[in-house]
Amino acid sequence: MKNKLLALIFTISISIGATVHADKTPVEWVNPFIGTGAVANSLSGNNYPGATVPFGMVQLSPDTRVAPDWAQASGYDYNDRQIIGFSHTRLSGTGASDFIDILLMPTTGKTCIEAQESPRSGTGYQSAFSHDRESASPGYYKVTLDSYGIDAELTASARVGMHRYRYPQGADSSHIVLDLDHSANKGSWGRRIINSQIRIVDPCTVDGYRIITGWAKLRKIYFRIRFSQPIRNVLLADGSRIYHNMPVINGTALKAVFDFDTRHNTTVMAKVALSPVSIENAIQNMSAEIPGWDFDDVVRQASGMWNAELGKIQVQGTDLQKEIFYTALYHTMIQPNIMSDANGDYMAADYTVRRLSGNDKHYSTFSLWDTYRAAHPLYTLIHPDRSAHFIKSMIRQYDYYGYLPVWQLWGQDNYCMIGNHAIPVIVDAIQKGIPGIDMEKAYEAVRKSSLISHPNSPFDVWDKYGYMPENIQSQSVSITLEFSFDDWCVARLAKKLGKEDDCRYFAGRSENYRNLFNPETRFFQPKDDKGNWITPFDPYKYGANGGYPFTEGNAWQYFWYVPHNIKSLVRLTGGDKAFAEKLDHFFTSTHTSGEKNDNASGFIGQYAHGNEPSHHVAYLYNYVGQPWKTQQYVSYILNNLYDNTSAGYAGNDDCGEMSSWYIFSAMGFYPVNPASGIYVIGSPLLEQADIHLPGGNSFTVKAPKKNDKEIYIQSVRLNGKKYDKTYITHQDILQGGTLEFKMGVKPSSWGKKPEMRPVEEPLM
Amino acid sequence: MKNKLLALIFTISISIGATVHADKTPVEWVNPFIGTGAVANSLSGNNYPGATVPFGMVQLSPDTRVAPDWAQASGYDYNDRQIIGFSHTRLSGTGASDFIDILLMPTTGKTCIEAQESPRSGTGYQSAFSHDRESASPGYYKVTLDSYGIDAELTASARVGMHRYRYPQGADSSHIVLDLDHSANKGSWGRRIINSQIRIVDPCTVDGYRIITGWAKLRKIYFRIRFSQPIRNVLLADGSRIYHNMPVINGTALKAVFDFDTRHNTTVMAKVALSPVSIENAIQNMSAEIPGWDFDDVVRQASGMWNAELGKIQVQGTDLQKEIFYTALYHTMIQPNIMSDANGDYMAADYTVRRLSGNDKHYSTFSLWDTYRAAHPLYTLIHPDRSAHFIKSMIRQYDYYGYLPVWQLWGQDNYCMIGNHAIPVIVDAIQKGIPGIDMEKAYEAVRKSSLISHPNSPFDVWDKYGYMPENIQSQSVSITLEFSFDDWCVARLAKKLGKEDDCRYFAGRSENYRNLFNPETRFFQPKDDKGNWITPFDPYKYGANGGYPFTEGNAWQYFWYVPHNIKSLVRLTGGDKAFAEKLDHFFTSTHTSGEKNDNASGFIGQYAHGNEPSHHVAYLYNYVGQPWKTQQYVSYILNNLYDNTSAGYAGNDDCGEMSSWYIFSAMGFYPVNPASGIYVIGSPLLEQADIHLPGGNSFTVKAPKKNDKEIYIQSVRLNGKKYDKTYITHQDILQGGTLEFKMGVKPSSWGKKPEMRPVEEPLM
Repeated sequence: MKNKLLALIFTISISIGATVHADKTPVEWVNPFIGTGAVANSLSGNNYPGATVPFGMVQLSPDTRVAPDWAQASGYDYNDRQIIGFSHTRLSGTGASDFIDILLMPTTGKTCIEAQESPRSGTGYQSAFSHDRESASPGYYKVTLDSYGIDAELTASARVGMHRYRYPQGADSSHIVLDLDHSANKGSWGRRIINSQIRIVDPCTVDGYRIITGWAKLRKIYFRIRFSQPIRNVLLADGSRIYHNMPVINGTALKAVFDFDTRHNTTVMAKVALSPVSIENAIQNMSAEIPGWDFDDVVRQASGMWNAELGKIQVQGTDLQKEIFYTALYHTMIQPNIMSDANGDYMAADYTVRRLSGNDKHYSTFSLWDTYRAAHPLYTLIHPDRSAHFIKSMIRQYDYYGYLPVWQLWGQDNYCMIGNHAIPVIVDAIQKGIPGIDMEKAYEAVRKSSLISHPNSPFDVWDKYGYMPENIQSQSVSITLEFSFDDWCVARLAKKLGKEDDCRYFAGRSENYRNLFNPETRFFQPKDDKGNWITPFDPYKYGANGGYPFTEGNAWQYFWYVPHNIKSLVRLTGGDKAFAEKLDHFFTSTHTSGEKNDNASGFIGQYAHGNEPSHHVAYLYNYVGQPWKTQQYVSYILNNLYDNTSAGYAGNDDCGEMSSWYIFSAMGFYPVNPASGIYVIGSPLLEQADIHLPGGNSFTVKAPKKNDKEIYIQSVRLNGKKYDKTYITHQDILQGGTLEFKMGVKPSSWGKKPEMRPVEEPLM
Repeated sequence: MKNKLLALIFTISISIGATVHADKTPVEWVNPFIGTGAVANSLSGNNYPGATVPFGMVQLSPDTRVAPDWAQASGYDYNDRQIIGFSHTRLSGTGASDFIDILLMPTTGKTCIEAQESPRSGTGYQSAFSHDRESASPGYYKVTLDSYGIDAELTASARVGMHRYRYPQGADSSHIVLDLDHSANKGSWGRRIINSQIRIVDPCTVDGYRIITGWAKLRKIYFRIRFSQPIRNVLLADGSRIYHNMPVINGTALKAVFDFDTRHNTTVMAKVALSPVSIENAIQNMSAEIPGWDFDDVVRQASGMWNAELGKIQVQGTDLQKEIFYTALYHTMIQPNIMSDANGDYMAADYTVRRLSGNDKHYSTFSLWDTYRAAHPLYTLIHPDRSAHFIKSMIRQYDYYGYLPVWQLWGQDNYCMIGNHAIPVIVDAIQKGIPGIDMEKAYEAVRKSSLISHPNSPFDVWDKYGYMPENIQSQSVSITLEFSFDDWCVARLAKKLGKEDDCRYFAGRSENYRNLFNPETRFFQPKDDKGNWITPFDPYKYGANGGYPFTEGNAWQYFWYVPHNIKSLVRLTGGDKAFAEKLDHFFTSTHTSGEKNDNASGFIGQYAHGNEPSHHVAYLYNYVGQPWKTQQYVSYILNNLYDNTSAGYAGNDDCGEMSSWYIFSAMGFYPVNPASGIYVIGSPLLEQADIHLPGGNSFTVKAPKKNDKEIYIQSVRLNGKKYDKTYITHQDILQGGTLEFKMGVKPSSWGKKPEMRPVEEPLM
C-alpha cells in the first residue's frame, strides 16, 4: 500500500507544465493535459486535452485508440504515440467509455491512397505524433501529425467543432477521412451501430447521422459538415463495399475519404455541427454558432467563455497551485453537457423529440454517484443558473422515465453505480434557494424516485427489511448507507415544504444505516434476509460493482458514510475518542486482504483518494475535536495526490468530481454532507481565493503562508471577527465577505471545542 | 420433383372451409386460416388468421410460438396447439419474421399465479387451444383458451387493437399478461430490445413503448392500453427483477401481470393503440379510431371496411373458388401498412419524426421483389388512390435515404432480395395515369435510384461491365436480368417525360441481359470480370440469396426473365419453336441437381409456383403462338396449387404476391411485364368477375363453363366485338365494358396468329 502510494507520488515526473507568466488570465493557467494519462501503478484521470466550451455538447479531441475503453475512456491516453483522428464527443474522467462520435482525420499521399483502398482498418489512416508538437488550452488544441506533416488545430462552440488542417506545401494528395464506424470499444455494453448515413450535399457540404446503442442505449447523432474548400473526389465505404463519387451511403460501418486540392491553398477547414435530433437542427446549430470561417475568432470566443467561467474564482498561490486549480476548475465545467439544440429541441427520456419552452436548456452527463458530493455543490455556488437547468433536466427524466437519473448520459439513464443521488443535488439546490426550480414538482420527483423501485433500488425490500439483505440485493451495505442519506435529503425537503407525514416516513428510513451496524465489530456489515450477519466478515476485503456488499470499496471505506448524522456515527463508534482512533487507524493501516478493486487508488492507509467513498473522510476529525488532523490529511492530499502531470489525479476525475474536491479543499472547506449547506473547514492551500458570486458579491478566503509547512490553522476571522466554528455555511458565502486564516507549522487549539463542530439541523 | 408436387396436391386434406351460404358478402367468403400452416413437404403461406383492417398498422393475431421465425414468420402456425398470446403487429406471408410487438394474454388461477412468480419464461402463461373453438373473419378473431376457459376475441381499427376476454364464471384470479419481451426470434437479424417501458397511468390505463432493432433496424412502438375494468394489482418484471404494484418500469425484458376482479363482470376488454412516434400520438390514435367500448361495433366497422374493399371485385364461381379468391384478395390488402399516425406524424427514413402535409398518408411494408409483379399492378386497378400514397411513401425514402426502397418495413430499407423494383411500381403507376404523383419528382427518385450504388446495386460495376461479374457481385445473373428490366422502366418514364438522353442511356442498359446470354448453351450464365463464362455451369443448380449467380432459383427459372422484351428473348432462344420447346421442357423436366433452395416449391417440372421468378412463365406461350399451353398451365396452377386449407398456397404468400397472381389469373389475365399496362390473357377460372373501378365504371369478365374441364379459350369478345389479341390493356379495363370468353374442353386456334401476341411499345 505504502509502496503504491510512494510510487504514485514519486514516479509522476513527466512535466507538461505551462511556462510562468505574470498577469495570466485563468485560461492561461489551464493545462488540459493534466489527467490524460496514467503512469505506472496509477489510474488515469481519463481526461482529454481537446477543444470544448463550458458545458458544451461538442468535445473535439484526438483519439489515440482505435476502440477506446476503460483505461482510455476519454479516447486519449498521454502515453500513446499515435492519433487515429479527431472525434467530436466523449466523456471526461469516467471509468466507462461511450460517445466518441464522428471522427475526422486529415491525411496525405500514399498512406491515404492505401487507406482509400482499404479504409476499413482502424490503422489505415492513423498518424504518429509527439507531445513536443502538441499544445492545448481551453477551447483550442493543436498537434502536428508527423506521418503526414499536417498541422491540425481544433476549436469548438457548444454544438459545433471546427478543424483547421494545414497540409504540407506541395502535397498533391490531400485527404480528410470521415469515419462513422469509429466509436468507443464495440466489445463493451453491447455497443453496435444501428444505422448511419453520409450524404454529399454539395462540394463543400456533407450531412449524415449515426444511430448507435451502447452505454447510452440509443443515441442519434446527426451532423452537418462544411469544408472551406470543395471536395474533388469522394470515396465512400460500408465495410468492404467501396463506392467512388457516389452522393450518399447508408450502412453500419461507414467511412468516407474526401480529396482536396491543396496546391494553391494548403489550409482546409471543416466545421462539424451536431444535433441529437435531426440534420435540420444540426444545420441550425451551425448557423447559430459558427456561421463564418474565422477559426481564430472561434478560438477567441471559446477562450472568452472559459475566462468568464473560470474567472468566477480568482486565486493566488504558487504557479503550480494555480495550474492545478484552474485545470481542476476547467474539468468541472466539461460537463454536464448541453443536449438541446439551439432551437430548444431535445430527445426526451422516452426517445421522443420535444421542444423546451422559453429559455430552458436540456443538459445531460450526470455521473451522480460521483458528482453529488462536491461538483454539484460547487455548481450551486458559481453556476446557480445552470444548476437550475441541470435540475430541470433531471426532472425531465422523471417526467418521461418515472424517476430521477442514477447515471445519465445523452439524456438516458444507465443505472451505473448505486443510490439515487439526483436527490441530494436537488434538495441541496432548493435548500440553498437556487431560483428557477418548481419546488413542488421537484419534491414530487424526489419522492417518487424514493418510492418507485428500479435497478439497484428495490424500495419494497428497503421498506420490508429496513436494510438491504445481501442475498436479495447485492452491494447491500453500500446501498443501505447511501439510501439512508438520500432518504434524509427527501425528509429535509419534505420538512421544508410542510409535508410532515412524508418527513417522518423518510426520516425514519434515513436511520436504516443503524440496522447494519454491528456493535461487536463496530462496522457496517451485510445481513441476509433473515437478519443474520453474513460471515466471514473482513473489513479490508474489496467489492467492485456487484456480488459483494461494498461498492468499489471495503467496509473500512464505507464505515464513514453517514454524512447526515456524523454525530450518531460517532456515538455508534463509541464516542469521540474511539471515532478519532478509528480515523487514525483508517489513515495509517496498510493492511490488505486480497485484490483491491480497479477504482481504489491514491492511498493513505485505507483511505483511497482515487475513488469517491473516501472523499469526505479527512474532514471528519473536525467532528470529534481534532481539526488539526483534518488539516494534516487534507493538506497532504492537496499537495501529494494532485499534480500537473498527465497522471495528475489519483484516479479517474469522474466528470470533475476529483477536481471539485480540489477546488473546495484548496479554498479551505468541503461539503461533507453535500445537501446540508454547510462546508467543513480543512486546510486552505491557496494564499487567496476570491469567489465572485452571481449577484455581484464576492467572498474572499485568505490564507497567507510563509512556507508550505504552514498547513495548520491557528485562528480564523470572518469579516474581521474571530471565527471558531470548524465550518461555514453557504449563506455565509453568499452574503460576501472575507474568511481569513492565520496558518502555522504546528497544530493549534482552534476548533477543538465541542460547540465548534459541524452540526446538522435536526429533522424532527 | 413430381413426388413433391403430388405430395403438395394430395396431402392438403385438412379442410377449414366456410359453410356454404347464398348471398354472402365478400367478407363472408374470406377464410383467414388459408395459408397459415404448412403440411408435410410444403411451405406455409406464412399468413395469419387475426384481426386487421385493410392496410392497417395493427395486425392483432395469436402467436403460437415463443419466438416466431422463418417457418412461422407471421407468428402463427396452424399446426401448433398452443397460443402464447395476442400481439399487435406482424408481417403477412414473408419468409423472414419481424414485428410481433406488444403481446397481451389473459390467464386465470394457479397457472397465472405461477406466471407471476416466474413470468420470464415464455411458457409461463401460454394456453392450449383447438381449431374447433377458433374462428376468424376479416377484422375479427375468436378462440377459446382451453387452459383457462377464457373466450378471447380480437378486432382492430387501423392503429388500435381491441380485445374482449370472457373469463369463466367464478374465476377468482383473472389476469392479463403484457409481454414487451416477446418478439420475433432474437436469434435472427441481431434482434435486440434497446429499451422499453410500462407505466400504469391510472387503474384503467397503461402506457409504454418498446424500442427494438431487428430486420427493421430501429423500431419505436409506443402504446396506450385502456382496460374496461380497473386493475386491482400489478406485477412488473424486468427479467428476473420483480416489482409489485409499482407505477412504472423501464428495461429490456419487461413483462406485466395485471389482476382484475371478474366476479361480477366476467368480461374484460382492452384497447391497445399504437404509434411509431410517441405515446401522445398513440393516445390520439385511440381517440380518433376507437373512443368507446362497443367491441361489436368495431367488428362491424372493420367488416364494413373489408366489404367495401373486397367488394371492388365481385365474382361468380364455385364456393371453393370464391373462398380462395376473396381470401387471396383479402391477403393483398393486409399490406402495405399505414405507418403515419392519425395526426400525420411519421418516422422518416432518417429516423426523425416529420409531419405529412394535407391528407397524405405514409405507408410501409414493401416486399418489392415480390409485389412489383402483380400486387402493385392490382393496386393500380382497384386502389389507385392508395397506389399514389404508396409511391409517395417510397419517394419519401428517396428524400431521406438517397434512393427508393428495395424491401421496406416500418419505413426502413433492409435491402432484402435484389433489383430496385420500386422503379417498375412507380413507372407503371405513372404510365397508367394514377393521379397525385409528382412525375418530375418521381423521375428524379427513379433515376437516382438507378445511379447511386447501394447494397446489391453497384451501378459503377453495371456501367463498367454491362453485366454483373459474379466475382464482384454475387447473384450476378439474377441481378443482371432484373436490372435490365428496371432500366427499361426508367427509360420508359424518361421517354414519357421527354428526357431523351436519359432514355437512350437507360434503354442501352436495359439490353445488358444480352451480355450474359450464352448462345452455345442458350442460357443466361455467369461471367467473371474478365468476361469469361464461369464453369462448370449447371442450369438445374439452385442458389439462395448470395454466393451463387441465381437468386432463390436456378438458370432454368431465371431464363425467362426479360419481361420487357420477350420478343428478343424468343429470338435469342432460336425462334418461336425453340422457345416453345424450351417452355415445354421447363414445365416437364423433373431433373434435379443438388439441393433446392428453401423457397422453391409448388413445382410443375422446373416451374416453381412457390416463388416469384416463375410467376410469369406460364403466360409466355402466348408470345409464340401457343396460347392453349398458357391456358393449360395457368388453369392447372389455379386449380391445383391453391386451395382452402392452411397450406392453401404453394409457398410463402409474400405480402400478397402469391394471392395477386391468383386474383389476376382467376379473372383471366396477368401482367407479365408489370410496368407495361398490358395484361396477358391466360385461362379465366371464374364464371364472372366484375371489377368496380373507382371512377364508377365496371369491367366485367365472363367465362361461363359447363364443367371444370373447359379450360381452353375458344373465342373472346370485348364489348360484344370479336377479340383476338392475347392481351388486354389497362386502358381497356378502365374504360369499362365486358370481356367475354367462350371456353371449351379442347385447345382452339384462338390467339395463334403472330399479330395477336402481346407487344411492347418500342422505347426508341
